[in-house]
Amino acid sequence: MEPLDPNTARAWLVTALAEARAGLAEGGIPIGAALYGADGGLLGRGRNRRVQDGDPATHAETAAFRAAGRQRSYRGTTMVTTLSPCWYCSGLVRQFGISRVVVGDAVTFQGGHDWLAAHGVEIVLLDDPGCVALMRAFVAERPELWNEDIGE
Amino acid sequence: MEPLDPNTARAWLVTALAEARAGLAEGGIPIGAALYGADGGLLGRGRNRRVQDGDPATHAETAAFRAAGRQRSYRGTTMVTTLSPCWYCSGLVRQFGISRVVVGDAVTFQGGHDWLAAHGVEIVLLDDPGCVALMRAFVAERPELWNEDIGE
Repeated sequence: MEPLDPNTARAWLVTALAEARAGLAEGGIPIGAALYGADGGLLGRGRNRRVQDGDPATHAETAAFRAAGRQRSYRGTTMVTTLSPCWYCSGLVRQFGISRVVVGDAVTFQGGHDWLAAHGVEIVLLDDPGCVALMRAFVAERPELWNEDIGE
Repeated sequence: MEPLDPNTARAWLVTALAEARAGLAEGGIPIGAALYGADGGLLGRGRNRRVQDGDPATHAETAAFRAAGRQRSYRGTTMVTTLSPCWYCSGLVRQFGISRVVVGDAVTFQGGHDWLAAHGVEIVLLDDPGCVALMRAFVAERPELWNEDIGE
């Protein structure tokens, strides 16, 4: 797999961040994700649905994965997420062989991206100020909702 | 947490196995799960929805977790599943602090239950003939569907 062009990574993150912001506007947890195919086409996008649907099982990465529908293979695909994937979403990436993860914010929350890297997944950390600011403000304003979403 | 009574474990597995069989009858992947509370009450039950809903993100454990709705804590809860949880579902258990996993079949498929045990989750392996027979027959009859469901 070729290294990801940094401009492409940032362009893809815009999609995930738009999902996160839409979630915030709905009163939800502002985490968004998008799954891109090996050819660079968008396969699916989505956001955390805990508040909107009362659904604790749909984290942003899960939502994007679901939106992509059934796929025969995830080889060469990239999961783009505004926040470092938790163990649940990291397990999703590992199980289905998603090749790469682009992370907007690995500062506010450190999920399983090191574990994924150790298992051969390419990790691209963007340290995006927009993602970090969005998550920081949310965690400060709604700590109980944030803790609920990560099981703490 | 007190050790789980073996009769209780087997009774709970009946719930998960009923979900798996219902899935098979629908033409789906026959894996079922149920989440039980610390007090022994059923919180949620469900089955793999890949075929029925065209939804690759809903494995049995995820379905049971979703059906349980939003919970403030998973301390003391038990995830009962007909088949050893894959990385995705193992990640779910770890992230949300589900205390115990009861597995009907860890022969046909070995998921992340050793990893969970290493991280403090109590694992109860039942080696249930009904679960093993159901999964073995399915994998033999629909290998392409089974491989799709585990990303292979």
